[in-house]
Amino acid sequence: MADTAPYRGATEDWSAKQYLKFEDERTRPPRDLLAQVPLSGPKRVVDLGCGPGNSTELLMERFPSAEMIGVDSSPDMLQQARERVPNCTFVKGDLETWMPQERTDLLFGNAVFQWLPDHPKVLARLLTALPPGGVLAVQMPDNTREPALQLMEEVGASGPWANAIAKSGAARNDLLRPEEFYDLLRPLCSHLDIWHTHYNHIMPNHAGVVEWFKGSSLRPFYSALDGTMREQFLAAYSDAITRAYSVRYDGKVILKFPRLFILAVR
Amino acid sequence: MADTAPYRGATEDWSAKQYLKFEDERTRPPRDLLAQVPLSGPKRVVDLGCGPGNSTELLMERFPSAEMIGVDSSPDMLQQARERVPNCTFVKGDLETWMPQERTDLLFGNAVFQWLPDHPKVLARLLTALPPGGVLAVQMPDNTREPALQLMEEVGASGPWANAIAKSGAARNDLLRPEEFYDLLRPLCSHLDIWHTHYNHIMPNHAGVVEWFKGSSLRPFYSALDGTMREQFLAAYSDAITRAYSVRYDGKVILKFPRLFILAVR
Repeated sequence: MADTAPYRGATEDWSAKQYLKFEDERTRPPRDLLAQVPLSGPKRVVDLGCGPGNSTELLMERFPSAEMIGVDSSPDMLQQARERVPNCTFVKGDLETWMPQERTDLLFGNAVFQWLPDHPKVLARLLTALPPGGVLAVQMPDNTREPALQLMEEVGASGPWANAIAKSGAARNDLLRPEEFYDLLRPLCSHLDIWHTHYNHIMPNHAGVVEWFKGSSLRPFYSALDGTMREQFLAAYSDAITRAYSVRYDGKVILKFPRLFILAVR
Repeated sequence: MADTAPYRGATEDWSAKQYLKFEDERTRPPRDLLAQVPLSGPKRVVDLGCGPGNSTELLMERFPSAEMIGVDSSPDMLQQARERVPNCTFVKGDLETWMPQERTDLLFGNAVFQWLPDHPKVLARLLTALPPGGVLAVQMPDNTREPALQLMEEVGASGPWANAIAKSGAARNDLLRPEEFYDLLRPLCSHLDIWHTHYNHIMPNHAGVVEWFKGSSLRPFYSALDGTMREQFLAAYSDAITRAYSVRYDGKVILKFPRLFILAVR
């Protein structure tokens, strides 16, 4: 979940530690995506937006003989990935312009393309660059309409922090609908499968929901703020989450998390 | 997808042939469910509502050493299953009252419990009957709010067939929400995971959508009707589907199909 999002400058790096707080839950979507990849012995596999290497590790497990390349824009993430996954090449790259080498069999993009506003065009370009039978496998959060994301925008737009956040362009656009991805990508494919999975993550309490998003969608919001204002924004967001999400019989909170999957065979 | 739905009498059996017209698409949900079952060497596995045996075949492939039992209420389905899957015991049973033998490690219910209006209670009972570590794995269509299902009810309620269909009790209730299943089942479990997957099935045209449902949800509707009236109802339903589902650039029609998955470890 690391890439070239426009708000991230050289000093505002992703925190691998915060992102990995919910490692089990965050590793299931790439597992589910990988389970649908119809390849047995790919020669060259690229993990796009490899982050701290949890998805790369899954790819190595499934394809131990493949040449494995991880691409990310975050030095912190790349360093974690190098320590975690040996026998793999990790390189810094910008997915807006990155192109695969010839004879790449699998491009795997887990929770990264949502950060590129232009990703439909990028996905079409990457798919076209694959050899016949090559696979583009993509997973993106599709949760912009969920209360947790809507509240980021609402709270972000209604406090002393509103100007700073508005300038940062922190909010993500809605994804295209499956029908739209179909019309865009199907002409470039021999096979295309698109589906959503809505996970229900069991959080210990409301604070757990805030912690979850501090490692991802909330980051561009609070990164735009300093010290006290950052704390005030997070407190206001926490209050809003507490009002929006009901508590189960055991005090836990269910965080519904819809994700879009695309599996395209060139 | 065969069980003890109340509208099915001795003479109105399920058609395995119609159901298997879309075998690839209908086998993916049980594959996805099975992929999440955290068992390595179960001794006894039961496929509840085994239908023509496509899910049983998957279970045999994953657990070749297990004692495998398939349960269904339809003689036609059971006969198909016996021919298809050797080394497995297939028995007629009614899931409203059926109970597992002692030391059953896995109860697998693919696309069957939606036909039991009382299934929340049944699932709780079955889960309680499992030994510690035993798994209840369930998948149900959760598509009652989709246009294809809403139109069955609308068209079914607004023609000369309305009385016959109303009497048959053909329409299914909405499923409980994940939060409600959580509150019901979590007290009986050591682990519970609930998720939805929304598949997008690519149909060749609108007629394909109608064919799909003729093998499942539409069956109780047209089974209540004779000859000409059945044809008229199906023609009216086809027209409604044509108006409700848009056509893609290549003439295909995308059928969105949400399904609920429950994985409970006793």
